[in-house]
Amino acid sequence: MEFSSKLLENAVYEISQLPGIGKRTALRLVLHLLRQDIDQTTRLSSALVNLRTEINFCKSCHNISDVELCEICANPLRDKEVICVVEDIRDVMAIESTGQFRGLYHVLGGKISPIDGVGPSDLFISSLVDKVKAGKVKEIIFALSSTMEGDTTNFYIYKQIEPYEVVTSTIARGIAVGDELEYADQITLGRSILHRIPFENSLKS
Amino acid sequence: MEFSSKLLENAVYEISQLPGIGKRTALRLVLHLLRQDIDQTTRLSSALVNLRTEINFCKSCHNISDVELCEICANPLRDKEVICVVEDIRDVMAIESTGQFRGLYHVLGGKISPIDGVGPSDLFISSLVDKVKAGKVKEIIFALSSTMEGDTTNFYIYKQIEPYEVVTSTIARGIAVGDELEYADQITLGRSILHRIPFENSLKS
Repeated sequence: MEFSSKLLENAVYEISQLPGIGKRTALRLVLHLLRQDIDQTTRLSSALVNLRTEINFCKSCHNISDVELCEICANPLRDKEVICVVEDIRDVMAIESTGQFRGLYHVLGGKISPIDGVGPSDLFISSLVDKVKAGKVKEIIFALSSTMEGDTTNFYIYKQIEPYEVVTSTIARGIAVGDELEYADQITLGRSILHRIPFENSLKS
Repeated sequence: MEFSSKLLENAVYEISQLPGIGKRTALRLVLHLLRQDIDQTTRLSSALVNLRTEINFCKSCHNISDVELCEICANPLRDKEVICVVEDIRDVMAIESTGQFRGLYHVLGGKISPIDGVGPSDLFISSLVDKVKAGKVKEIIFALSSTMEGDTTNFYIYKQIEPYEVVTSTIARGIAVGDELEYADQITLGRSILHRIPFENSLKS
């Protein structure tokens, strides 16, 4: 792409550094901003800078939070003995929106992935182990995605907390509600048969 | 979506104001920025603000340009008697990349669209008419998209410059090179038969 303006080229380049946004889309977004009021651009750029410079994380679960202890961790009605281990804030939001979980979360900040240069020390694993060591946790629920990286991370953490008295579980994998069996992949269908549950339990929710 | 942080919510909201970006994608982009070096965010936001505050347009063709007269208008090798009328800078870039056009451009900045509140006075039409009036232009090529808005704009400009001695043409519509006839839409196929060209001409490029 040949640009008639350095300013334009620079803006398009910076936007196209974002994941999933190519140069064509970046140009479309930039032209949109040029057509809008200048306020929209200043609001956007200051929102990004403010977020990046002033962002805070909950000192207990490492979720993004404006206060020292996030709303969930600070809520006296939540069950502090059950901790759900997730990758990032999106997973917290997804699980919260189901309304089915009343425990706390622990945000790892990623998954162990040697290919991307992410080792156990880059994630918030030791603080999770410390919580277990302190003996106040009854159950750890693994809710990472079931990829090789997710499974590796689960297993690594499992090995760390195995010596202590804590129940570990992982969220159920199976056919999604409403899905047709014939379109399900073999591994998922296989697991859903292997880990079948008593029929009466399925009537509960 | 419920956010655990006002800063995060604000950043996601501002990004999701961009066309084609929903809240989910905005959150993904924001989390990506949080994982990157802070420099990336500052570079992105200053690139946007700089573009929006310092942007200039060519005083002749209204294309985006850092200098008063854009590279194309200032090029002595371009044919100043042929002007191609386009909607925005993306069309200029697309036509330039073909290497088939040696004339100048005139960027309207949009199309006449009463539904979006865009009237003739919102576009750079009068400056185009002035160029024709000055008598230095031999041909005007309409290269707007063939939508109702594009056709309306073409016709409006055509009516304005009709009294003057100038050839008007519009880019050829037809079956795209490499496309199968059976998948072409009826209108395009119909036009490509109506506006067929001598076979020898088709051998030229």
